[in-house]
Amino acid sequence: MKQFEMYELTIKGEEPQGSQALVDVTAEFTCGGQTTKVKGFYAGDGNYKVRFYPSLAGAYTYRVSGLMQAEGSLVCLPNEDKKAGIVRAEGTHFVYDGGEIFKPFGTTIYALSHQEEERIAQTMETLSTAPFNKVRHCVFPKHYDYNHNDPELYAFEKDADGKWDVNRPCFAFWEHLEKQIFTLADMGIQSDLILFHPYDKWGFSHMTMEENLIYLDYLLRRFAAIPQIWWSMANEYDLVMDRTMEDWYDIESFIVENDPYHHLLSNHNCFGFYDFSRENITHQCVQTILVQKAADWMKEFEKPLCYDECCYEGNLPLTWGNISGWEMANRFWMAVCQGAYATHGEVFLSDDEVLWWAKGGVLKGESPKRIAYLKEIVDAIPGAIEPWQEYHDFDIQAYMEKHHLESMEELQNSPLISRFMNPNEVDDIVSKMKDYNAFGHVGEDYYIGYYGRHCNGIAPWKLPEDHQYKIEIIDMWNMTRDVTMTGVSGRFDVKMPGKEGIAVLASRID
Amino acid sequence: MKQFEMYELTIKGEEPQGSQALVDVTAEFTCGGQTTKVKGFYAGDGNYKVRFYPSLAGAYTYRVSGLMQAEGSLVCLPNEDKKAGIVRAEGTHFVYDGGEIFKPFGTTIYALSHQEEERIAQTMETLSTAPFNKVRHCVFPKHYDYNHNDPELYAFEKDADGKWDVNRPCFAFWEHLEKQIFTLADMGIQSDLILFHPYDKWGFSHMTMEENLIYLDYLLRRFAAIPQIWWSMANEYDLVMDRTMEDWYDIESFIVENDPYHHLLSNHNCFGFYDFSRENITHQCVQTILVQKAADWMKEFEKPLCYDECCYEGNLPLTWGNISGWEMANRFWMAVCQGAYATHGEVFLSDDEVLWWAKGGVLKGESPKRIAYLKEIVDAIPGAIEPWQEYHDFDIQAYMEKHHLESMEELQNSPLISRFMNPNEVDDIVSKMKDYNAFGHVGEDYYIGYYGRHCNGIAPWKLPEDHQYKIEIIDMWNMTRDVTMTGVSGRFDVKMPGKEGIAVLASRID
Repeated sequence: MKQFEMYELTIKGEEPQGSQALVDVTAEFTCGGQTTKVKGFYAGDGNYKVRFYPSLAGAYTYRVSGLMQAEGSLVCLPNEDKKAGIVRAEGTHFVYDGGEIFKPFGTTIYALSHQEEERIAQTMETLSTAPFNKVRHCVFPKHYDYNHNDPELYAFEKDADGKWDVNRPCFAFWEHLEKQIFTLADMGIQSDLILFHPYDKWGFSHMTMEENLIYLDYLLRRFAAIPQIWWSMANEYDLVMDRTMEDWYDIESFIVENDPYHHLLSNHNCFGFYDFSRENITHQCVQTILVQKAADWMKEFEKPLCYDECCYEGNLPLTWGNISGWEMANRFWMAVCQGAYATHGEVFLSDDEVLWWAKGGVLKGESPKRIAYLKEIVDAIPGAIEPWQEYHDFDIQAYMEKHHLESMEELQNSPLISRFMNPNEVDDIVSKMKDYNAFGHVGEDYYIGYYGRHCNGIAPWKLPEDHQYKIEIIDMWNMTRDVTMTGVSGRFDVKMPGKEGIAVLASRID
Repeated sequence: MKQFEMYELTIKGEEPQGSQALVDVTAEFTCGGQTTKVKGFYAGDGNYKVRFYPSLAGAYTYRVSGLMQAEGSLVCLPNEDKKAGIVRAEGTHFVYDGGEIFKPFGTTIYALSHQEEERIAQTMETLSTAPFNKVRHCVFPKHYDYNHNDPELYAFEKDADGKWDVNRPCFAFWEHLEKQIFTLADMGIQSDLILFHPYDKWGFSHMTMEENLIYLDYLLRRFAAIPQIWWSMANEYDLVMDRTMEDWYDIESFIVENDPYHHLLSNHNCFGFYDFSRENITHQCVQTILVQKAADWMKEFEKPLCYDECCYEGNLPLTWGNISGWEMANRFWMAVCQGAYATHGEVFLSDDEVLWWAKGGVLKGESPKRIAYLKEIVDAIPGAIEPWQEYHDFDIQAYMEKHHLESMEELQNSPLISRFMNPNEVDDIVSKMKDYNAFGHVGEDYYIGYYGRHCNGIAPWKLPEDHQYKIEIIDMWNMTRDVTMTGVSGRFDVKMPGKEGIAVLASRID
């Protein structure tokens, strides 16, 4: 047994009577007076398994009870790998149990594990050199435009009436799915596993809540000890027609109660965001184009923010699926330079209907290598970027001077200016769309500003007076970086190339 | 006297006692039993002038009374020029009194007439080959970033205390300003004349309402008979700190009561739009980046819509002044393809502080030739473009099929879908930002669709079944157009190049 890695115990027995999902097998793992109780699962073929994720190194005892009995003692070796273990939310960022910050650069391959073997192998080959360290993929298969193929395996066997029987997991399916999760994990890629979604012709989105909880119970028994997994309750929860908000809250509670390790948990929207203020929700998983709002939402919810869908690079006749590679990379830069994270997707029309976004295969777009370039820059910065909100704060003094206003009172008394001083939600969003540049910092060591589509010829900067910095101009599309100033501090102007896609990085040199 | 052209009558007299702005000179022009009463103005040097704009051809009599007396008869010749006369709002479009549709392609040169003679001459030379047929410019000089020069002439003389005396117009100033208006008019360019603005160090924005109305009285006596003039009550009315909304309504009423010809009248915002539902307001003059909302606002107010400020092409360190030439052209295409209009501006950093947007000079940007290309295409289409809203209407049937919904009722009963069916204002704007393509049509003769930043590889189209069309693919940036289909009708897919800046034009050929 090794700290921060899944430990698995197999006990042979007879095929269970009744539900094969909810077998009566539990285990207790005790280390240093601390006991964790986990449920075992039936893996078919007379194999009962107990999986455990040890967060502590040291001497353990375990005891299996219920249908199967076993007990013993184990030594759990300490894990020195800082990238080991479950990724957790800490403030507005992510950290491995091993201690290192995890900075997600995601992609979507929704129906990854529902493709033929050759396709999956090709996908894994592509991922082995791609910049992505998180993949959003689904337990259930996907039926949608460009997704008309049936998978070989389904999560459950059917009953005599041809109805899915959640009490009879299809073991080959679960082995196949977890094989993909392990393969991704071996490449350092987190599975942001989507538990429900609406794009369905097989009936999985129409299961009753009772069936849903049995399905989740089995899934959690089987997967919860795998470190490299996040729970995404749904993709587009608000399009799953059979579900009410209460259902989603019940699903949320069930997961929290049945996941002994408290993996990351969120829910992905189509229209309205899930309520990220809920205690069990560890991070903000959003579908929106509003990359300009990252700093606001990080401040509001004090949780990490993943733009898990902000349109896809491609050429579909659908507005969510035809942004340019430039714009896809631009949205990554906007999010990341504020300390948030983004998820890529790619949808190029293809005669064989193999679009990366759902099926994997090979990447055709222009954004991945720019995302790789951004990742390289961000990975080289120790620490996590926080929004640098001060940069945007309205310089009231300069404004008053410009308008010959003598006092704050005069400004606030002006009835027409009040809309500016107290913008409504629409004004706020539109002005952010127009005005926003994405600025972040890591303490007083690094400051980064990304200007998006703004073509500044110069940019005013203000850094701490008591440190010295070097200034680099980064061209996100041409992937160049040039040191243009050294030893600067306080207020100064940065000369800029007057084009789109430019970032300024200030690194402390004293 | 010629129909739709300014007629001017000069009467010599002595310098007026008291106010030189509000001289007691009125004139009545009668034609076919219809009498128009106008006020005369004092032009200095003992010259009293009466200006009149005849909308009817035929035999006129006139009678001047008050300080000066005169009477006589005149023949007003008919004007066959369809581009003659005042431009008026008709539905959501503009039409000359001569009958032709006017499609504004504007630019801003706010302080045009406040520059030295050489600069003005250079500006007029530039305009002679530029695509712009409307210029927004100010009566009062401009003090702002990159605008630090004092003009040679001001609208008024100063009194003994050094205070502007609105009752003593500076005649040289008014002659100079109207000379620019006439020069523009000779090139077919409308003056969208800005009567007030906040960017002031001389005190013009701080005049009392009584002073403002005296100033307007003189201006209207002098300028109202000039056909090629629009009244823009302000640039950024809501930044003029001394003014309340009631003041603006009073200014609006005063203009309408004192302009016998009812020129186009609107008001330009910084934050919140002026109330375009007001009866006297002839068109929507907006500062916003929301070119995606054109069709909505045209439908809401049933008045023409001019995006008179949607950021400027340039490289300033100010977010309103550093969009790319591509984006400036993009906003024109978005507006125009929905049947709205847009205004250009250009702000490139320059050691001599000559930025086109306020001072004129030469154009340096990349957008004007693309705007010229768009204008050429639009001018070749007879008639005015109306929004083609149907193209965007939510295809409820397709949606229901995709989601296996059996009835409208089921869809509406779904609590989570209700946000989509009834979007709030923020959802509406964000979804338009994400999803909108700009579609317009002229009857059943022309349909145009501009895809902006969407990189469609194909696009579904639906045209009338009973006509035949040819399809052209237009690349707005490279300025190419290629016929790719002929004889199509009904539903069909258009093959597209999968890049940004593409329009599809369908022209009826049967």
